[in-house]
Amino acid sequence: MSEKFIIGIDLGGTNLKIALLDSKFRIKYKESLSTRKFSDKAELIGAIVSAVNRIMNDYAISKKEIAGVGLGLPGPVDHDKGIVHFFPNIPGWKEVRLKDILERKLNLKVSIDNDAKLMALAEYRQGRARDFKNVLCITLGTGVGGSIIINGKLYRGANNAAGEIGHLPINETGPDCNCGGSACLEAYIGNDRIRDLGRRLFRRDISPEELSDLAKSGNAKALKIWDEVGAHLGLALAGMVNVLNLDAIIIGGGIANAGKFLFDKVNKVIRARAMTVQAKQVKVFKAELGNEAGMIGAGISFMESCA
Amino acid sequence: MSEKFIIGIDLGGTNLKIALLDSKFRIKYKESLSTRKFSDKAELIGAIVSAVNRIMNDYAISKKEIAGVGLGLPGPVDHDKGIVHFFPNIPGWKEVRLKDILERKLNLKVSIDNDAKLMALAEYRQGRARDFKNVLCITLGTGVGGSIIINGKLYRGANNAAGEIGHLPINETGPDCNCGGSACLEAYIGNDRIRDLGRRLFRRDISPEELSDLAKSGNAKALKIWDEVGAHLGLALAGMVNVLNLDAIIIGGGIANAGKFLFDKVNKVIRARAMTVQAKQVKVFKAELGNEAGMIGAGISFMESCA
Repeated sequence: MSEKFIIGIDLGGTNLKIALLDSKFRIKYKESLSTRKFSDKAELIGAIVSAVNRIMNDYAISKKEIAGVGLGLPGPVDHDKGIVHFFPNIPGWKEVRLKDILERKLNLKVSIDNDAKLMALAEYRQGRARDFKNVLCITLGTGVGGSIIINGKLYRGANNAAGEIGHLPINETGPDCNCGGSACLEAYIGNDRIRDLGRRLFRRDISPEELSDLAKSGNAKALKIWDEVGAHLGLALAGMVNVLNLDAIIIGGGIANAGKFLFDKVNKVIRARAMTVQAKQVKVFKAELGNEAGMIGAGISFMESCA
Repeated sequence: MSEKFIIGIDLGGTNLKIALLDSKFRIKYKESLSTRKFSDKAELIGAIVSAVNRIMNDYAISKKEIAGVGLGLPGPVDHDKGIVHFFPNIPGWKEVRLKDILERKLNLKVSIDNDAKLMALAEYRQGRARDFKNVLCITLGTGVGGSIIINGKLYRGANNAAGEIGHLPINETGPDCNCGGSACLEAYIGNDRIRDLGRRLFRRDISPEELSDLAKSGNAKALKIWDEVGAHLGLALAGMVNVLNLDAIIIGGGIANAGKFLFDKVNKVIRARAMTVQAKQVKVFKAELGNEAGMIGAGISFMESCA
């Protein structure tokens, strides 16, 4: 194991987060930029390059002291070849050889990976999943992402596309989903759907954050919404518990902040719908690393891909 | 790799099948006994022991030439400790240390495993799944069993209970399932449900086999039933394709004989409901080893557990 630093970057639709990590993946420094001010692909790549260079300058770290750069991305990625297939929420990216481009511009080794996978890696190596071998991590936000740890290793699947629990159908017929399918979990509990539920009950625009606060203060309508969200989520997870015989489920993303109401309902549905042996085994936790999971996971993914 | 023989046994609710396998898991001899004539646990264990001894006598094989005995069982099993938890369809078995009992009576090494897992092992090592790394095997019969190959290895899960695709809910509300849950895949396409569908449309008792024959001769009612079964099955598989990013799905068990009608519908639903990358990757096949998969898989499981 190298004692060098690693740079971990988490590129999202909203923010570009970058961290200087030590060899144990502890964050020594971090910063966040708004992604929206970069109008195209070249500008975004330029921003990544200058953020890396700025950190090295500010901390007086030479390239020799950096093992490399791990980058988490909000969309499907060919991790082995270093290619971005596309980003659902950032236009202008299609089959971009981002690893090669950044390695040339930075003169550092780079690895790229999908952000949901990095959350699982981070929670498994440093966070709430660290005592467990078979884990499903799920992130609840605009999209519902997921990733699976199998026998202590990130499971990538045939095309690095495994883990899409957000696109598990929970009914045979139901609302259209962004993925082109229908009745997927995401089509019931993505942020936009939760806003729709809020609008219907409160007759005004209301954010998931406000719905969480209202639920905490006992508001019956807000509680009803989280109960409904928990029912959909619990059903999908019960299926995964039966199929994957998991040790743990880690729930992250903004919606996970809804807290006890949501987790209680999820647990209740799992107990009711999953098989006894599997339901007894699995534990459900809130993710521990929050917004830092992507940067930490990017560093871990970089080191694992170099090993 | 030893050049010794292995004895592979597949115990089902209906038949006890036993095979003499060579070191490459090829069947040199096999026989089948009705399970129903053995009235209790002791008799069934006695029948296994005498079948093993009879084969050794008939073929003039000494214990030294036998590596050991692999046994597949129709229920949840602790593979490591050699304990049968229970059998859903054979009464009188509860937490039985079957491996120890048989080793004492046979003076041979024994391993026990769940039959759905053995089907996957057999198809992966010797059958239709042999060119693929990430595979879901599903058996359609009275129950709907399943098993998963992940990165070229049988995935057992936390309690050796992984793979229960038959108990993936395909709707939030729906018919009660034998597992205690509801709206599970098995509650829609288990043999009994297919018989119910047949009875409703044909107004008489009609077996899945006859429904297959009728569909092959173009009978519209039978085709409608397989179309419905294929729709339920395809939906469950689409979810698994999204979550597991599979290379292949292998469908076995009696119902798989419904053939083209069923497979066409399953493929159609997967293309319609699964995500593009995952749907393009996965191939759906009929299992190749049929009734022999259990015996072959039992032999493979024995050798793997000794390795």
